[in-house]
Amino acid sequence: MMRVFISGFGTVGQGAMETFLLKKPDIHRITGDLVHVVGVTDSRSYEVDEREVCGLCILGNKAVTGMAGHNLKEGKTTIDIMEMCDFDTLIEATPTNVETGGEGLKNIRWALEHGKNVITVNKGPLALEFAELMALARKNGCELRFEGSVGGAMPIINLCTNDLAGMKIRSIQGIFNGTCNFILSRMDSGLPFEQALKEAQQLGYAETDPTYDIEGYDSASKVVILANSVFGRDVKFKDVSVTGITSVTSEAIALAAECGMVIRLIGEVSKDKLEVSPRLIPKGHPLSISGSLNTALINTDLAGPITVSGRGAGRKETASAILSDLISIMKSQKKE
Amino acid sequence: MMRVFISGFGTVGQGAMETFLLKKPDIHRITGDLVHVVGVTDSRSYEVDEREVCGLCILGNKAVTGMAGHNLKEGKTTIDIMEMCDFDTLIEATPTNVETGGEGLKNIRWALEHGKNVITVNKGPLALEFAELMALARKNGCELRFEGSVGGAMPIINLCTNDLAGMKIRSIQGIFNGTCNFILSRMDSGLPFEQALKEAQQLGYAETDPTYDIEGYDSASKVVILANSVFGRDVKFKDVSVTGITSVTSEAIALAAECGMVIRLIGEVSKDKLEVSPRLIPKGHPLSISGSLNTALINTDLAGPITVSGRGAGRKETASAILSDLISIMKSQKKE
Repeated sequence: MMRVFISGFGTVGQGAMETFLLKKPDIHRITGDLVHVVGVTDSRSYEVDEREVCGLCILGNKAVTGMAGHNLKEGKTTIDIMEMCDFDTLIEATPTNVETGGEGLKNIRWALEHGKNVITVNKGPLALEFAELMALARKNGCELRFEGSVGGAMPIINLCTNDLAGMKIRSIQGIFNGTCNFILSRMDSGLPFEQALKEAQQLGYAETDPTYDIEGYDSASKVVILANSVFGRDVKFKDVSVTGITSVTSEAIALAAECGMVIRLIGEVSKDKLEVSPRLIPKGHPLSISGSLNTALINTDLAGPITVSGRGAGRKETASAILSDLISIMKSQKKE
Repeated sequence: MMRVFISGFGTVGQGAMETFLLKKPDIHRITGDLVHVVGVTDSRSYEVDEREVCGLCILGNKAVTGMAGHNLKEGKTTIDIMEMCDFDTLIEATPTNVETGGEGLKNIRWALEHGKNVITVNKGPLALEFAELMALARKNGCELRFEGSVGGAMPIINLCTNDLAGMKIRSIQGIFNGTCNFILSRMDSGLPFEQALKEAQQLGYAETDPTYDIEGYDSASKVVILANSVFGRDVKFKDVSVTGITSVTSEAIALAAECGMVIRLIGEVSKDKLEVSPRLIPKGHPLSISGSLNTALINTDLAGPITVSGRGAGRKETASAILSDLISIMKSQKKE
């Protein structure tokens, strides 16, 4: 049995639990094993049950309504709760904090130090302390996986590290923020920036405070994760040269269109590049894609350019990346 | 040591051997093991050396010039040569024949029956006898892999069967023939069909007899492979409903452009669909891509739509898919 602890029982954490329930037969067919969620925490409360929290939650109709009414954490941290619990894999889905790493960094450190596998979609810890966390995982014989941290449902980490194994990846250029791409795509249709942003907010693509997205910080944290995981570099969030999309004008977009181009916010990473900036992209080019998708163009020595795209966020979509990581861990442990 | 036999020592077979030599250090780093090519055949001649054929070929400067001057097969088949040889994995790269499966089908059958792994980029045997060959591989405890048979360097088979494990794949729609896509893209720029075809031939994208590509047969064979491998169906080449691009007129393309659309040759496969036909695609859509790339749009239950694209053919590009398959086999055998 694979016993799972979920820290951060919000949209993503609840989505993961629902997915494990929904996909129970498929997981069993693929891995020959079962997943039980034995502990969950959110910012205020927790639930622990060695038989299966999700069973309880579903009975109490709590899986979709969140943790209200469960045991209050009051003065306890997620680490205190993890210590009460016998589990194999931590799924870390607390909010991203790229300045300190937040609670997520502490949770991941604790789990790896105690030989638990970690699947994180929290970008902060990876953007700040990637090398340390990978070394911790190696030292303690457990796995640290993070497919969902870059591009949500867009498969890129496992694609680059498994499917393209043996190839030299020269660079990755990509659209790593769906909010910015939605805004720029709407500006292609003639909308001014402010109005496109408002529309993105109304549709739920952009936060009330959109700074983290539109200033390019979200893209930058993904670029850092790719630099460290795919290119074996040792860089941090502050090392990225970042320009957001607030300075992109309707005039610039109209001028680009006249030359058959669009403007897109592109993150680029290679052995010696680490940059996020708006760039001119020819129409018809894989990175000229419209809408809220994420896209990555992977330049390789043998295969040439390979492009992938997918939904960069969303409850089910992020859960799909978590599920993919969990199945990989279960398959590799089965073989051992 | 992984001992490899290559049948079909043309562009793709030679490309594979060069790649194994070039990537020796990377393969060793990833798998802890070495690859030795111990036998090769082309239509007329063969070379066998238990120490390493490619060593010899490189010494004699034969790796790039082909097999001229080596031992003539004269009355012997590739199977006769394989019988002389102690090897673990057959790389099958003889020309595709979707009517009989050709020599490739016989070679693959023989290898699987004798417990050898098979990596094939030859679509014929897979489009005709997929179920039989997979059953043979299972029965004899060996692997049959074919990443390069669909979309060359575009990662799709392993992506669908590994990275998206646990997800339900509802359908795959794709551009599976770079020649047709090049022709249609050039027609977007106002060229008539005949002229676009001529240009494709001059650039080496299209054969002198382009029937197999432009009538949609090549796309159809790839759709069959996806149906059998990803959707677990049991279909054959003749089951595909196929319309090629010869009936696409400049007028149709101009009319489509007026409505913000392009025409692309799309293969579609799902539980109950198996079709290749020209379709209207909105500009900016992932399948509106221009040029000679292959693209696939994978519709999943959890992750939503995922798109991949890459070069559908080429010496190095196809070799990259063979290398990826070989490394997967070496990694999984290491774990056993």
